[in-house]
Amino acid sequence: MIDGISPLDEAAMEAARALHARLTKPAGSLGALEELSVRLAGLAGECPPPLPEPAAVAIFAGDHGVHAQGVTPWPQEVTGQMVANFLSGGAVVNAFARQVGASVTVVDVGVVDDLGWGAGAGDRRAEERSDEDGVSRPFPAPSASAGEQRPGLVAAKVRAGTRDMTAQAALTREEVSAALEAGARVAFKLVDEGARVLVTGDMGIANTTPAATLIAAFTGSDAATVTGRGTGIDDYRYARKVAVVRTALEVHKPDPADPVGVLAAVGGLEHAAIAGFILGGASRRVPVILDGVIAVSAALAAAALAPDAVGAMVAGHRSAEPGATVALAHLGLEPLIDLGLRLGEGTGAVLAVPIVASAVRVLHEVATFDAAGVSEK
Amino acid sequence: MIDGISPLDEAAMEAARALHARLTKPAGSLGALEELSVRLAGLAGECPPPLPEPAAVAIFAGDHGVHAQGVTPWPQEVTGQMVANFLSGGAVVNAFARQVGASVTVVDVGVVDDLGWGAGAGDRRAEERSDEDGVSRPFPAPSASAGEQRPGLVAAKVRAGTRDMTAQAALTREEVSAALEAGARVAFKLVDEGARVLVTGDMGIANTTPAATLIAAFTGSDAATVTGRGTGIDDYRYARKVAVVRTALEVHKPDPADPVGVLAAVGGLEHAAIAGFILGGASRRVPVILDGVIAVSAALAAAALAPDAVGAMVAGHRSAEPGATVALAHLGLEPLIDLGLRLGEGTGAVLAVPIVASAVRVLHEVATFDAAGVSEK
Repeated sequence: MIDGISPLDEAAMEAARALHARLTKPAGSLGALEELSVRLAGLAGECPPPLPEPAAVAIFAGDHGVHAQGVTPWPQEVTGQMVANFLSGGAVVNAFARQVGASVTVVDVGVVDDLGWGAGAGDRRAEERSDEDGVSRPFPAPSASAGEQRPGLVAAKVRAGTRDMTAQAALTREEVSAALEAGARVAFKLVDEGARVLVTGDMGIANTTPAATLIAAFTGSDAATVTGRGTGIDDYRYARKVAVVRTALEVHKPDPADPVGVLAAVGGLEHAAIAGFILGGASRRVPVILDGVIAVSAALAAAALAPDAVGAMVAGHRSAEPGATVALAHLGLEPLIDLGLRLGEGTGAVLAVPIVASAVRVLHEVATFDAAGVSEK
Repeated sequence: MIDGISPLDEAAMEAARALHARLTKPAGSLGALEELSVRLAGLAGECPPPLPEPAAVAIFAGDHGVHAQGVTPWPQEVTGQMVANFLSGGAVVNAFARQVGASVTVVDVGVVDDLGWGAGAGDRRAEERSDEDGVSRPFPAPSASAGEQRPGLVAAKVRAGTRDMTAQAALTREEVSAALEAGARVAFKLVDEGARVLVTGDMGIANTTPAATLIAAFTGSDAATVTGRGTGIDDYRYARKVAVVRTALEVHKPDPADPVGVLAAVGGLEHAAIAGFILGGASRRVPVILDGVIAVSAALAAAALAPDAVGAMVAGHRSAEPGATVALAHLGLEPLIDLGLRLGEGTGAVLAVPIVASAVRVLHEVATFDAAGVSEK
């Protein structure tokens, strides 16, 4: 898969630039959207590139042994409870996805709670609970709008949470590989089902701690520079979180030239799965919109494994977490949205979906000066 | 109408804040979107406020006597040609509007070219050209997507372009009043037809010059601070444009306490109409998403006429024009999108439509901690 990830197509990008110059607007007047549309032409290898619709969000959920170090006031059980909330359509990411017409898939790659079903049993349980209209409805339906979709669950648990990275490696290399493969398989499945843009989502109480550690490891930044307040922790817990990140870096001395080793030492199962999801999208030349700090930490791992994968990445938004800005700069990506969001789930990336689609739509639908009979300067 | 514009409803805002605290997400984790949704509850006077759908874009078009001063390399005829492009669905704003499901209405408040029909004849001509399927199609249909709507034209020409503000007042007070009323009438019409969010658009070759002058007049800023390169002018024209703005300010010494006088001295017909459009939306307590520098210069006039109208304003984006940032700061508004756009037409504001809708949707659809069975920290 990684060998199949190749550079952007220069000829398609040149064709997109030339087309932009003929469209009825001043040159360059769409700012960052012109550059984005040119890049997506390069990714697709044609101009105009396909419209990035429909969009598919995949929320990768996992738990973290480092939770025991007191890095967050939220109990670990919330990860599984929020998976249930995603499946019943009641979370913010569901509301945003309904707004933009995106599907939502939840992937259990490492939740501690078995959610009442064993690994592999999730889809079966959903089927068992199909009700009179034949639609799988594993949790009560929300009181939501007409546009609501029924999110599906992919049961792909690699293990029930990671180990505590301050004491030992969070994962084995085999577990990292399994999570990478799980993420890639989800990308392939969604593209095979028709998705033309993929959107990263995540859920995992304590998962900003491994994200910060990954960002420090891949960018060489200090723990204090990349560690944020996650859900909004107080000064006491923040100092503890920075110390935990620093300890993990000192214990493992992760080598950025060995991305699987970095993920094993200080990563999370959802981080590894998102890296695989990005690589899967890139290998199919489908754009992947990155959400916040979890996604961009995973994107650093993906870029270390396959540098050309960056061509498929679209930074959906700038998370309020400081590590996100460090990671985006390292990747050379400018975010589309910057509204102080720090929720995760994929929320920031989903908001960017119509912007990405609009950028591509220009190349499909806007009239040229000649065709519209508009004079040039 | 202005007397009917009142402050935001504090009780509804408090209810929205209290609801946010119960929803399944960390407090404050939606950043600027939480503040926006609270403000829209205050505007509507209820929590949750109505979903801001459907959206209606109104593009106000006009020409400018100051064009004779060489502030832009684009010929004046482009204003009318772009009106035709909007009506045939071939401009960028049309593509973006199709993406977000917004309707597009074009309003001729002051185009020099009579577009082949006299004032008031636009709608009639469209009818005459209705073709076999009975749909008004005043210009050839674009090769566009299924979601395409047929934009309508409102013929409300106050006069064929303004006078050259470096030599005399651009407009009479009566002409300003007529344009304000035309804008308000369009707002009322769109709301009566079902729109639940209004979006400002504009077209007018040379119209960033009066916009910069209006911003200087209302904020007390220097000409060089608020004048930008518009469509992308060179250093020679830029120096000329700053000098023109400075001359207009010196000739008229506009008094910001007399907003109609300011609009008459240095404004444009589309600027005045957009001010009326904003006031019309505010009086109906419907949010108005502001586009770029033309819109925010008009918003300063609207705020001077009715300070509480600011409660209905949503800054859709930050234009690359420096005056836009000065005006937004004066209004106390933070933009939702900041992507270096400088096209006008309503393009930046249209991109913000799904973000505004998403912010409100949270209050309608997201589960509470209790209902979802999610533990709190």
